[in-house]
Amino acid sequence: MTISPLGPAATTVDFVDGHTRVFAIIGHPVEQVRSPQAITYELRRRGHNAILLPFDVAPNAFDDVFQQLLAIQNLDGLIITVPHKMRARDLCIRVGPRADISGSASVIAKTADNQWVGELFDGMGCIAAIRNRGVTFAGKRVALLGVGGAGAGIAVELARQTPADIHICDPDGDKVARVMARLSSRFPAQSFTAGMPPLDRIDILINASPVGMLDPTQMPIEASRFPPHLVVMDVITDPAPTRLLRTAEDSGCVAIYGREMFDSQIAGACDFLLSSRAVAAKDIRFDHHVSVNRSG
Amino acid sequence: MTISPLGPAATTVDFVDGHTRVFAIIGHPVEQVRSPQAITYELRRRGHNAILLPFDVAPNAFDDVFQQLLAIQNLDGLIITVPHKMRARDLCIRVGPRADISGSASVIAKTADNQWVGELFDGMGCIAAIRNRGVTFAGKRVALLGVGGAGAGIAVELARQTPADIHICDPDGDKVARVMARLSSRFPAQSFTAGMPPLDRIDILINASPVGMLDPTQMPIEASRFPPHLVVMDVITDPAPTRLLRTAEDSGCVAIYGREMFDSQIAGACDFLLSSRAVAAKDIRFDHHVSVNRSG
Repeated sequence: MTISPLGPAATTVDFVDGHTRVFAIIGHPVEQVRSPQAITYELRRRGHNAILLPFDVAPNAFDDVFQQLLAIQNLDGLIITVPHKMRARDLCIRVGPRADISGSASVIAKTADNQWVGELFDGMGCIAAIRNRGVTFAGKRVALLGVGGAGAGIAVELARQTPADIHICDPDGDKVARVMARLSSRFPAQSFTAGMPPLDRIDILINASPVGMLDPTQMPIEASRFPPHLVVMDVITDPAPTRLLRTAEDSGCVAIYGREMFDSQIAGACDFLLSSRAVAAKDIRFDHHVSVNRSG
Repeated sequence: MTISPLGPAATTVDFVDGHTRVFAIIGHPVEQVRSPQAITYELRRRGHNAILLPFDVAPNAFDDVFQQLLAIQNLDGLIITVPHKMRARDLCIRVGPRADISGSASVIAKTADNQWVGELFDGMGCIAAIRNRGVTFAGKRVALLGVGGAGAGIAVELARQTPADIHICDPDGDKVARVMARLSSRFPAQSFTAGMPPLDRIDILINASPVGMLDPTQMPIEASRFPPHLVVMDVITDPAPTRLLRTAEDSGCVAIYGREMFDSQIAGACDFLLSSRAVAAKDIRFDHHVSVNRSG
Protein backbone atom coordinates (compact mmCIF):
# COMPACT_ATOMS: atom_id res chain seq x y z
CA MET A 1 0.00 0.00 0.00
CA THR A 2 0.98 3.62 -0.44
CA ILE A 3 0.89 6.11 2.39
CA SER A 4 -0.28 9.50 1.19
CA PRO A 5 2.65 11.86 1.05
CA LEU A 6 3.22 14.36 3.83
CA GLY A 7 5.43 16.40 1.54
CA PRO A 8 8.82 17.66 2.63
CA ALA A 9 7.59 18.32 6.20
CA ALA A 10 8.95 15.13 7.67
CA THR A 11 12.43 15.94 6.47
CA THR A 12 12.32 19.73 6.81
CA VAL A 13 11.03 20.13 10.36
CA ASP A 14 13.79 18.41 12.28
CA PHE A 15 13.81 20.78 15.24
CA VAL A 16 10.64 19.78 17.08
CA ASP A 17 8.74 16.56 17.80
CA GLY A 18 6.80 14.93 20.62
CA HIS A 19 9.96 14.47 22.69
CA THR A 20 11.10 18.11 22.55
CA ARG A 21 11.85 19.75 25.91
CA VAL A 22 10.47 23.26 26.08
CA PHE A 23 11.96 26.47 27.48
CA ALA A 24 10.54 29.97 27.17
CA ILE A 25 11.57 33.57 27.56
CA ILE A 26 8.82 35.60 29.21
CA GLY A 27 8.72 39.32 28.59
CA HIS A 28 6.42 42.11 27.49
CA PRO A 29 7.05 42.81 24.69
CA VAL A 30 9.18 39.90 23.40
CA GLU A 31 9.81 40.74 19.76
CA GLN A 32 13.27 42.15 20.52
CA VAL A 33 14.66 39.17 22.44
CA ARG A 34 17.52 37.07 21.12
CA SER A 35 17.38 34.17 23.57
CA PRO A 36 15.21 32.02 21.28
CA GLN A 37 17.99 31.81 18.73
CA ALA A 38 20.93 31.85 21.15
CA ILE A 39 19.70 29.50 23.88
CA THR A 40 18.12 27.12 21.38
CA TYR A 41 21.42 26.97 19.52
CA GLU A 42 23.36 26.24 22.70
CA LEU A 43 20.89 23.56 23.86
CA ARG A 44 21.06 21.83 20.49
CA ARG A 45 24.83 22.19 20.32
CA ARG A 46 24.93 20.20 23.58
CA GLY A 47 22.83 17.45 22.02
CA HIS A 48 19.45 18.24 23.58
CA ASN A 49 16.14 17.96 21.74
CA ALA A 50 15.03 21.30 23.16
CA ILE A 51 13.87 24.72 22.09
CA LEU A 52 13.36 28.13 23.70
CA LEU A 53 10.35 30.17 22.59
CA PRO A 54 9.12 33.68 23.28
CA PHE A 55 6.06 34.03 25.55
CA ASP A 56 4.56 37.53 25.57
CA VAL A 57 2.86 37.95 28.97
CA ALA A 58 1.57 41.24 30.38
CA PRO A 59 2.45 42.17 33.98
CA ASN A 60 -1.06 41.61 35.34
CA ALA A 61 -1.04 38.02 34.06
CA PHE A 62 2.51 37.11 35.00
CA ASP A 63 1.96 35.53 38.43
CA ASP A 64 -0.70 33.09 37.24
CA VAL A 65 1.12 32.11 34.06
CA PHE A 66 4.37 31.61 35.97
CA GLN A 67 2.60 29.30 38.41
CA GLN A 68 0.72 27.33 35.75
CA LEU A 69 3.82 26.70 33.64
CA LEU A 70 4.90 24.31 36.40
CA ALA A 71 2.12 22.01 35.15
CA ILE A 72 3.59 21.65 31.65
CA GLN A 73 5.69 18.59 32.38
CA ASN A 74 8.10 18.92 29.47
CA LEU A 75 8.75 22.63 30.12
CA ASP A 76 12.00 22.78 32.08
CA GLY A 77 12.87 26.42 32.53
CA LEU A 78 12.42 30.09 31.77
CA ILE A 79 14.39 33.15 30.88
CA ILE A 80 12.81 36.25 32.36
CA THR A 81 13.14 39.68 30.83
CA VAL A 82 11.64 43.15 31.17
CA PRO A 83 9.38 43.83 33.05
CA HIS A 84 9.09 40.58 35.03
CA LYS A 85 12.51 40.00 36.63
CA MET A 86 11.66 41.32 40.08
CA ARG A 87 8.36 39.46 40.28
CA ALA A 88 10.04 36.25 39.10
CA ARG A 89 12.57 36.54 41.90
CA ASP A 90 9.77 36.92 44.44
CA LEU A 91 7.86 33.91 43.14
CA CYS A 92 10.79 31.45 43.20
CA ILE A 93 10.95 29.09 46.15
CA ARG A 94 14.75 29.58 46.25
CA VAL A 95 17.11 32.01 44.52
CA GLY A 96 20.87 32.38 44.26
CA PRO A 97 22.87 35.16 45.95
CA ARG A 98 22.88 37.51 42.93
CA ALA A 99 19.11 37.32 42.62
CA ASP A 100 18.79 37.73 46.35
CA ILE A 101 20.85 40.92 46.53
CA SER A 102 19.54 42.47 43.34
CA GLY A 103 15.91 41.51 43.90
CA SER A 104 15.68 40.20 40.33
CA ALA A 105 15.97 36.80 38.64
CA SER A 106 16.69 36.21 34.96
CA VAL A 107 17.01 32.42 34.68
CA ILE A 108 14.43 30.15 36.30
CA ALA A 109 14.78 26.37 36.42
CA LYS A 110 12.21 23.75 37.33
CA THR A 111 13.47 21.33 39.96
CA ALA A 112 12.91 17.59 40.39
CA ASP A 113 10.15 18.38 42.92
CA ASN A 114 8.44 20.76 40.48
CA GLN A 115 9.41 24.10 42.00
CA TRP A 116 10.90 27.20 40.44
CA VAL A 117 14.40 28.24 41.49
CA GLY A 118 16.12 31.29 40.06
CA GLU A 119 19.33 33.21 39.67
CA LEU A 120 20.40 36.43 38.00
CA PHE A 121 22.99 35.93 35.27
CA ASP A 122 23.14 39.49 33.86
CA GLY A 123 25.98 40.60 36.10
CA MET A 124 28.10 37.55 35.36
CA GLY A 125 27.68 38.11 31.64
CA CYS A 126 28.55 41.79 31.88
CA ILE A 127 31.73 41.23 33.85
CA ALA A 128 32.79 38.36 31.59
CA ALA A 129 32.24 40.52 28.49
CA ILE A 130 34.46 43.27 29.90
CA ARG A 131 37.16 40.84 31.04
CA ASN A 132 37.03 39.14 27.63
CA ARG A 133 38.30 42.44 26.21
CA GLY A 134 41.36 42.26 28.45
CA VAL A 135 40.06 44.84 30.92
CA THR A 136 40.75 44.20 34.60
CA PHE A 137 38.91 45.68 37.57
CA ALA A 138 41.38 45.74 40.48
CA GLY A 139 42.00 49.33 41.50
CA LYS A 140 39.65 50.73 38.86
CA ARG A 141 36.93 53.34 39.37
CA VAL A 142 33.66 52.14 37.90
CA ALA A 143 30.44 54.07 37.28
CA LEU A 144 27.19 52.15 36.86
CA LEU A 145 24.18 53.87 35.27
CA GLY A 146 20.89 52.31 36.31
CA VAL A 147 20.12 49.90 39.14
CA GLY A 148 17.01 48.16 37.90
CA GLY A 149 17.15 44.36 37.69
CA ALA A 150 20.12 44.12 35.36
CA GLY A 151 21.98 47.01 36.97
CA ALA A 152 21.70 45.64 40.49
CA GLY A 153 22.94 42.26 39.30
CA ILE A 154 25.91 43.92 37.63
CA ALA A 155 26.64 45.82 40.86
CA VAL A 156 26.86 42.52 42.74
CA GLU A 157 29.31 41.02 40.27
CA LEU A 158 31.28 44.29 40.12
CA ALA A 159 31.72 44.16 43.89
CA ARG A 160 33.15 40.66 43.60
CA GLN A 161 35.90 42.11 41.33
CA THR A 162 37.06 44.50 44.11
CA PRO A 163 37.46 47.71 42.07
CA ALA A 164 38.65 50.86 43.86
CA ASP A 165 35.19 52.43 43.84
CA ILE A 166 31.73 51.71 42.47
CA HIS A 167 29.64 54.81 41.67
CA ILE A 168 25.95 54.10 41.34
CA CYS A 169 23.71 56.52 39.42
CA ASP A 170 19.96 56.21 38.99
CA PRO A 171 17.22 58.85 38.86
CA ASP A 172 15.38 56.85 41.55
CA GLY A 173 17.25 57.88 44.71
CA ASP A 174 15.29 55.51 46.93
CA LYS A 175 16.26 52.58 44.76
CA VAL A 176 19.90 53.61 44.84
CA ALA A 177 19.80 53.78 48.63
CA ARG A 178 18.10 50.39 48.90
CA VAL A 179 20.53 48.61 46.58
CA MET A 180 23.54 50.28 48.19
CA ALA A 181 22.40 49.20 51.65
CA ARG A 182 22.13 45.58 50.50
CA LEU A 183 25.47 45.72 48.72
CA SER A 184 27.28 47.32 51.64
CA SER A 185 26.03 44.68 54.07
CA ARG A 186 27.18 41.94 51.73
CA PHE A 187 30.48 43.56 50.67
CA PRO A 188 31.48 45.68 53.69
CA ALA A 189 35.04 46.30 52.44
CA GLN A 190 33.90 47.67 49.08
CA SER A 191 33.50 51.42 48.49
CA PHE A 192 30.10 52.37 47.03
CA THR A 193 29.21 55.98 46.19
CA ALA A 194 25.90 57.37 44.99
CA GLY A 195 25.98 59.76 42.04
CA MET A 196 28.06 60.37 38.95
CA PRO A 197 31.62 61.73 39.25
CA PRO A 198 33.33 63.73 36.46
CA LEU A 199 34.24 61.47 33.52
CA ASP A 200 37.97 61.94 34.01
CA ARG A 201 37.64 60.46 37.51
CA ILE A 202 36.40 57.05 36.33
CA ASP A 203 37.94 54.21 34.32
CA ILE A 204 34.96 52.07 33.38
CA LEU A 205 31.44 53.30 32.52
CA ILE A 206 28.62 50.75 32.36
CA ASN A 207 25.15 51.67 31.15
CA ALA A 208 22.55 49.33 32.64
CA SER A 209 19.65 51.73 32.05
CA PRO A 210 17.25 51.46 29.10
CA VAL A 211 18.11 54.97 27.87
CA GLY A 212 19.12 54.75 24.22
CA MET A 213 17.05 51.64 23.42
CA LEU A 214 13.61 52.87 22.37
CA ASP A 215 14.88 56.31 21.35
CA PRO A 216 18.30 55.80 19.73
CA THR A 217 19.03 59.55 19.85
CA GLN A 218 19.13 59.43 23.66
CA MET A 219 22.16 58.88 25.86
CA PRO A 220 22.14 57.89 29.55
CA ILE A 221 24.75 60.60 30.29
CA GLU A 222 25.37 64.05 28.85
CA ALA A 223 28.60 63.98 26.87
CA SER A 224 29.67 64.68 23.32
CA ARG A 225 33.09 63.11 23.91
CA PHE A 226 34.72 60.76 26.39
CA PRO A 227 38.30 60.68 27.67
CA PRO A 228 40.01 58.03 25.52
CA HIS A 229 41.16 55.98 28.55
CA LEU A 230 37.53 55.26 29.42
CA VAL A 231 36.12 51.75 28.85
CA VAL A 232 32.42 52.06 27.94
CA MET A 233 30.00 49.13 28.13
CA ASP A 234 26.32 49.31 27.18
CA VAL A 235 23.97 46.45 28.13
CA ILE A 236 21.53 47.45 25.37
CA THR A 237 21.69 44.96 22.50
CA ASP A 238 19.56 46.86 20.00
CA PRO A 239 20.41 49.32 18.48
CA ALA A 240 24.03 48.32 18.07
CA PRO A 241 25.89 50.52 18.55
CA THR A 242 23.83 52.74 20.81
CA ARG A 243 24.55 56.45 20.67
CA LEU A 244 26.58 55.95 23.87
CA LEU A 245 28.82 53.34 22.22
CA ARG A 246 29.10 55.34 19.00
CA THR A 247 30.28 58.34 21.00
CA ALA A 248 32.76 56.13 22.85
CA GLU A 249 34.15 54.76 19.59
CA ASP A 250 34.39 58.27 18.12
CA SER A 251 36.36 59.24 21.22
CA GLY A 252 38.83 56.38 20.80
CA CYS A 253 37.52 54.44 23.79
CA VAL A 254 37.12 50.69 24.13
CA ALA A 255 33.40 50.16 23.48
CA ILE A 256 31.81 46.89 24.66
CA TYR A 257 28.45 45.87 23.23
CA GLY A 258 25.35 44.42 24.90
CA ARG A 259 25.61 41.45 22.62
CA GLU A 260 28.95 40.50 24.13
CA MET A 261 27.37 40.41 27.59
CA PHE A 262 24.43 38.47 26.26
CA ASP A 263 26.65 35.89 24.57
CA SER A 264 28.78 35.51 27.68
CA GLN A 265 25.87 34.45 29.84
CA ILE A 266 24.35 31.86 27.48
CA ALA A 267 26.53 28.97 28.60
CA GLY A 268 26.01 29.72 32.29
CA ALA A 269 22.26 30.00 31.83
CA CYS A 270 22.15 26.66 30.01
CA ASP A 271 24.22 25.00 32.73
CA PHE A 272 21.71 26.15 35.32
CA LEU A 273 18.63 25.25 33.28
CA LEU A 274 19.86 21.76 32.44
CA SER A 275 21.41 20.78 35.75
CA SER A 276 18.50 21.75 38.02
CA ARG A 277 15.76 19.44 36.84
CA ALA A 278 17.36 16.38 38.43
CA VAL A 279 17.77 18.10 41.82
CA ALA A 280 15.23 18.92 44.54
CA ALA A 281 14.80 22.65 45.25
CA LYS A 282 16.38 22.41 48.71
CA ASP A 283 19.54 20.89 47.21
CA ILE A 284 20.12 23.31 44.34
CA ARG A 285 23.58 24.87 44.49
CA PHE A 286 24.11 28.42 43.27
CA ASP A 287 27.86 28.32 42.75
CA HIS A 288 27.56 29.47 39.16
CA HIS A 289 30.09 31.43 37.30
CA VAL A 290 30.51 32.50 33.71
CA SER A 291 33.91 31.56 32.38
CA VAL A 292 35.83 34.24 30.63
CA ASN A 293 36.46 33.39 26.98
CA ARG A 294 34.21 30.39 27.24
CA SER A 295 32.49 29.89 23.93
CA GLY A 296 29.00 31.29 24.26
CA MET B 1 35.52 47.12 17.07
CA THR B 2 34.91 43.37 16.93
CA ILE B 3 31.78 41.76 18.27
CA SER B 4 32.56 38.49 19.98
CA PRO B 5 31.39 35.64 17.81
CA LEU B 6 28.14 33.86 18.60
CA GLY B 7 29.24 30.85 16.58
CA PRO B 8 27.03 29.19 14.00
CA ALA B 9 23.89 29.77 16.12
CA ALA B 10 22.76 32.86 14.27
CA THR B 11 22.75 31.00 10.99
CA THR B 12 21.68 27.58 12.25
CA VAL B 13 18.64 28.46 14.36
CA ASP B 14 16.41 30.02 11.73
CA PHE B 15 13.13 28.58 13.01
CA VAL B 16 12.51 30.67 16.12
CA ASP B 17 13.02 34.28 17.19
CA GLY B 18 11.25 36.96 19.20
CA HIS B 19 8.51 37.31 16.58
CA THR B 20 7.58 33.61 16.45
CA ARG B 21 3.89 32.81 16.94
CA VAL B 22 3.40 29.82 19.20
CA PHE B 23 1.00 26.87 18.96
CA ALA B 24 0.97 23.80 21.17
CA ILE B 25 -0.42 20.31 21.25
CA ILE B 26 -1.61 19.41 24.74
CA GLY B 27 -1.76 15.75 25.70
CA HIS B 28 -0.65 13.29 28.35
CA PRO B 29 1.63 11.77 27.32
CA VAL B 30 2.84 13.73 24.27
CA GLU B 31 5.92 11.82 23.10
CA GLN B 32 3.94 9.99 20.40
CA VAL B 33 2.36 13.04 18.73
CA ARG B 34 3.23 14.05 15.18
CA SER B 35 1.56 17.49 15.09
CA PRO B 36 4.76 19.33 16.05
CA GLN B 37 6.42 18.29 12.79
CA ALA B 38 3.32 18.29 10.59
CA ILE B 39 1.59 21.49 11.73
CA THR B 40 4.88 23.38 12.04
CA TYR B 41 5.72 22.36 8.49
CA GLU B 42 2.35 23.47 7.17
CA LEU B 43 2.50 26.81 9.03
CA ARG B 44 5.97 27.51 7.65
CA ARG B 45 4.99 26.35 4.17
CA ARG B 46 2.32 29.07 4.28
CA GLY B 47 4.93 31.67 5.16
CA HIS B 48 4.25 32.06 8.89
CA ASN B 49 6.96 32.50 11.51
CA ALA B 50 5.26 29.96 13.76
CA ILE B 51 5.89 26.67 15.53
CA LEU B 52 3.82 24.03 17.28
CA LEU B 53 5.28 22.41 20.38
CA PRO B 54 4.26 19.56 22.64
CA PHE B 55 2.92 20.47 26.11
CA ASP B 56 2.60 17.49 28.44
CA VAL B 57 -0.19 18.36 30.90
CA ALA B 58 -1.83 15.90 33.30
CA PRO B 59 -5.66 15.80 33.53
CA ASN B 60 -5.83 17.40 36.98
CA ALA B 61 -3.90 20.45 35.71
CA PHE B 62 -5.59 20.82 32.33
CA ASP B 63 -8.32 23.33 33.20
CA ASP B 64 -5.96 25.86 34.79
CA VAL B 65 -3.28 25.56 32.11
CA PHE B 66 -5.88 25.87 29.34
CA GLN B 67 -7.20 29.06 30.92
CA GLN B 68 -3.77 30.58 31.57
CA LEU B 69 -2.53 29.98 28.02
CA LEU B 70 -4.94 32.75 27.00
CA ALA B 71 -2.53 35.15 28.70
CA ILE B 72 0.42 34.25 26.45
CA GLN B 73 -0.21 36.89 23.83
CA ASN B 74 1.78 35.31 21.01
CA LEU B 75 0.22 31.86 21.54
CA ASP B 76 -2.56 31.57 18.97
CA GLY B 77 -3.99 28.09 19.22
CA LEU B 78 -3.89 24.53 20.45
CA ILE B 79 -4.24 21.00 19.22
CA ILE B 80 -5.81 18.81 21.88
CA THR B 81 -5.16 15.11 22.14
CA VAL B 82 -5.78 12.24 24.56
CA PRO B 83 -7.05 12.56 27.26
CA HIS B 84 -8.17 16.21 27.09
CA LYS B 85 -10.51 16.47 24.09
CA MET B 86 -13.77 16.32 26.01
CA ARG B 87 -12.65 18.79 28.66
CA ALA B 88 -11.37 21.17 25.96
CA ARG B 89 -14.76 21.11 24.28
CA ASP B 90 -16.44 22.01 27.59
CA LEU B 91 -14.06 24.90 28.27
CA CYS B 92 -14.42 26.61 24.88
CA ILE B 93 -16.75 29.58 24.75
CA ARG B 94 -18.01 28.38 21.36
CA VAL B 95 -17.55 25.15 19.40
CA GLY B 96 -18.45 23.95 15.94
CA PRO B 97 -21.15 21.39 15.18
CA ARG B 98 -18.81 18.37 15.12
CA ALA B 99 -17.42 19.23 18.54
CA ASP B 100 -20.92 19.91 19.78
CA ILE B 101 -22.32 16.53 18.77
CA SER B 102 -19.26 14.49 19.68
CA GLY B 103 -18.57 16.28 22.95
CA SER B 104 -14.89 16.61 22.01
CA ALA B 105 -12.70 19.31 20.44
CA SER B 106 -9.33 18.73 18.79
CA VAL B 107 -8.38 22.16 17.42
CA ILE B 108 -8.71 25.27 19.57
CA ALA B 109 -8.14 28.78 18.28
CA LYS B 110 -7.74 32.02 20.19
CA THR B 111 -10.06 34.74 18.96
CA ALA B 112 -9.55 38.49 18.59
CA ASP B 113 -11.33 39.00 21.94
CA ASN B 114 -9.04 36.44 23.64
CA GLN B 115 -11.40 33.51 23.96
CA TRP B 116 -11.00 29.85 23.04
CA VAL B 117 -13.19 28.45 20.27
CA GLY B 118 -12.95 24.83 19.14
CA GLU B 119 -13.90 22.27 16.58
CA LEU B 120 -13.26 18.56 16.06
CA PHE B 121 -11.35 17.77 12.88
CA ASP B 122 -10.79 14.02 13.39
CA GLY B 123 -13.92 12.99 11.53
CA MET B 124 -13.21 15.22 8.56
CA GLY B 125 -9.72 13.79 8.26
CA CYS B 126 -10.95 10.20 8.48
CA ILE B 127 -13.60 10.61 5.80
CA ALA B 128 -11.20 12.51 3.54
CA ALA B 129 -8.58 9.75 3.91
CA ILE B 130 -11.10 7.08 2.88
CA ARG B 131 -12.45 9.13 -0.03
CA ASN B 132 -8.89 9.86 -1.14
CA ARG B 133 -8.60 6.10 -1.78
CA GLY B 134 -11.55 6.27 -4.16
CA VAL B 135 -13.98 4.74 -1.68
CA THR B 136 -17.53 6.18 -1.66
CA PHE B 137 -20.07 5.95 1.14
CA ALA B 138 -23.50 6.14 -0.47
CA GLY B 139 -25.36 2.89 0.14
CA LYS B 140 -22.48 1.35 2.10
CA ARG B 141 -22.71 -0.40 5.46
CA VAL B 142 -20.14 1.01 7.86
CA ALA B 143 -19.02 -0.31 11.24
CA LEU B 144 -17.29 2.03 13.66
CA LEU B 145 -15.29 0.60 16.57
CA GLY B 146 -15.00 3.03 19.48
CA VAL B 147 -16.93 6.22 20.20
CA GLY B 148 -14.54 8.16 22.36
CA GLY B 149 -13.65 11.65 21.17
CA ALA B 150 -12.25 10.65 17.79
CA GLY B 151 -14.87 7.99 17.20
CA ALA B 152 -17.81 10.26 17.89
CA GLY B 153 -16.38 12.87 15.55
CA ILE B 154 -15.99 10.26 12.85
CA ALA B 155 -19.59 9.18 13.42
CA VAL B 156 -20.77 12.74 12.75
CA GLU B 157 -18.88 12.99 9.49
CA LEU B 158 -19.96 9.47 8.50
CA ALA B 159 -23.60 10.50 8.93
CA ARG B 160 -23.03 13.44 6.56
CA GLN B 161 -21.99 10.92 3.88
CA THR B 162 -25.40 9.15 4.10
CA PRO B 163 -24.25 5.53 4.10
CA ALA B 164 -26.92 2.78 4.24
CA ASP B 165 -26.20 1.99 7.88
CA ILE B 166 -23.78 2.99 10.60
CA HIS B 167 -23.03 0.30 13.20
CA ILE B 168 -21.51 1.64 16.39
CA CYS B 169 -19.56 -0.70 18.67
CA ASP B 170 -18.01 0.25 21.99
CA PRO B 171 -17.62 -1.72 25.23
CA ASP B 172 -19.22 1.25 27.06
CA GLY B 173 -22.91 0.72 26.31
CA ASP B 174 -23.96 3.94 28.03
CA LYS B 175 -21.61 5.94 25.84
CA VAL B 176 -22.94 4.26 22.70
CA ALA B 177 -26.50 5.10 23.72
CA ARG B 178 -25.59 8.72 24.48
CA VAL B 179 -23.76 9.29 21.19
CA MET B 180 -26.46 7.52 19.17
CA ALA B 181 -29.16 9.69 20.76
CA ARG B 182 -27.29 12.85 19.80
CA LEU B 183 -26.60 11.58 16.29
CA SER B 184 -30.19 10.47 15.71
CA SER B 185 -31.60 13.83 16.72
CA ARG B 186 -29.17 15.59 14.39
CA PHE B 187 -29.46 13.11 11.49
CA PRO B 188 -33.00 11.72 11.82
CA ALA B 189 -32.99 10.06 8.39
CA GLN B 190 -29.79 8.11 9.03
CA SER B 191 -29.83 4.51 10.29
CA PHE B 192 -27.68 3.92 13.36
CA THR B 193 -27.37 0.47 14.95
CA ALA B 194 -25.57 -0.49 18.14
CA GLY B 195 -23.31 -3.51 18.04
CA MET B 196 -21.13 -5.32 15.54
CA PRO B 197 -22.72 -7.24 12.64
CA PRO B 198 -21.01 -10.21 10.92
CA LEU B 199 -18.09 -9.05 8.79
CA ASP B 200 -19.72 -10.14 5.53
CA ARG B 201 -22.58 -7.74 6.25
CA ILE B 202 -20.45 -4.58 6.24
CA ASP B 203 -18.44 -2.75 3.57
CA ILE B 204 -16.27 -0.39 5.58
CA LEU B 205 -14.70 -1.04 9.00
CA ILE B 206 -13.21 1.89 10.92
CA ASN B 207 -11.26 1.40 14.12
CA ALA B 208 -11.43 4.55 16.29
CA SER B 209 -10.53 2.72 19.49
CA PRO B 210 -7.02 2.67 21.00
CA VAL B 211 -6.82 -1.13 20.84
CA GLY B 212 -3.64 -2.08 18.99
CA MET B 213 -1.68 1.05 19.90
CA LEU B 214 0.06 0.31 23.22
CA ASP B 215 -0.04 -3.47 22.70
CA PRO B 216 0.59 -4.11 18.98
CA THR B 217 -0.49 -7.76 19.32
CA GLN B 218 -4.07 -6.67 20.09
CA MET B 219 -6.90 -6.17 17.61
CA PRO B 220 -10.14 -4.26 18.23
CA ILE B 221 -12.12 -7.14 16.68
CA GLU B 222 -11.64 -10.90 16.69
CA ALA B 223 -10.73 -12.03 13.19
CA SER B 224 -7.84 -13.84 11.53
CA ARG B 225 -9.06 -12.91 8.05
CA PHE B 226 -11.40 -10.35 6.50
CA PRO B 227 -13.62 -10.67 3.43
CA PRO B 228 -11.58 -9.11 0.61
CA HIS B 229 -14.33 -6.62 -0.30
CA LEU B 230 -13.96 -4.94 3.12
CA VAL B 231 -12.30 -1.52 3.36
CA VAL B 232 -10.44 -1.29 6.69
CA MET B 233 -9.33 2.01 8.23
CA ASP B 234 -7.42 2.33 11.50
CA VAL B 235 -7.05 5.77 13.14
CA ILE B 236 -3.96 4.59 15.07
CA THR B 237 -0.83 6.14 13.58
CA ASP B 238 1.75 4.11 15.50
CA PRO B 239 2.43 1.24 15.02
CA ALA B 240 1.97 1.34 11.26
CA PRO B 241 0.55 -0.98 10.21
CA THR B 242 -1.41 -2.06 13.26
CA ARG B 243 -2.25 -5.74 13.53
CA LEU B 244 -5.73 -4.86 12.24
CA LEU B 245 -4.31 -3.30 9.07
CA ARG B 246 -1.77 -6.07 8.58
CA THR B 247 -4.59 -8.61 8.76
CA ALA B 248 -6.59 -6.52 6.27
CA GLU B 249 -3.66 -6.39 3.86
CA ASP B 250 -3.05 -10.12 4.21
CA SER B 251 -6.73 -10.62 3.35
CA GLY B 252 -6.47 -8.54 0.18
CA CYS B 253 -8.52 -5.66 1.61
CA VAL B 254 -7.97 -1.96 1.04
CA ALA B 255 -6.17 -0.87 4.26
CA ILE B 256 -6.17 2.83 5.14
CA TYR B 257 -3.66 4.10 7.67
CA GLY B 258 -4.05 6.54 10.55
CA ARG B 259 -1.38 8.68 9.01
CA GLU B 260 -3.55 9.29 5.96
CA MET B 261 -6.31 10.61 8.23
CA PHE B 262 -3.83 12.69 10.17
CA ASP B 263 -2.35 14.21 7.01
CA SER B 264 -5.80 14.98 5.64
CA GLN B 265 -6.78 17.14 8.59
CA ILE B 266 -3.60 19.24 8.79
CA ALA B 267 -4.66 21.83 6.23
CA GLY B 268 -8.13 22.23 7.75
CA ALA B 269 -6.69 22.60 11.23
CA CYS B 270 -4.25 25.28 10.04
CA ASP B 271 -7.05 27.16 8.25
CA PHE B 272 -9.02 27.27 11.48
CA LEU B 273 -6.05 28.20 13.67
CA LEU B 274 -4.89 31.01 11.39
CA SER B 275 -8.24 32.51 10.43
CA SER B 276 -9.74 32.80 13.90
CA ARG B 277 -7.38 35.22 15.60
CA ALA B 278 -8.72 38.21 13.65
CA VAL B 279 -12.35 37.40 14.48
CA ALA B 280 -14.37 37.86 17.67
CA ALA B 281 -15.68 34.64 19.24
CA LYS B 282 -19.31 35.45 18.47
CA ASP B 283 -18.48 35.87 14.77
CA ILE B 284 -16.44 32.67 14.22
CA ARG B 285 -17.90 30.54 11.45
CA PHE B 286 -17.61 26.77 11.62
CA ASP B 287 -18.19 25.94 7.96
CA HIS B 288 -14.96 23.97 7.76
CA HIS B 289 -14.36 21.09 5.50
CA VAL B 290 -11.32 19.06 4.57
CA SER B 291 -10.86 18.91 0.84
CA VAL B 292 -10.33 15.51 -0.66
CA ASN B 293 -6.91 15.21 -2.28
CA ARG B 294 -5.90 18.57 -0.90
CA SER B 295 -2.20 18.54 -0.17
CA GLY B 296 -1.80 17.99 3.57
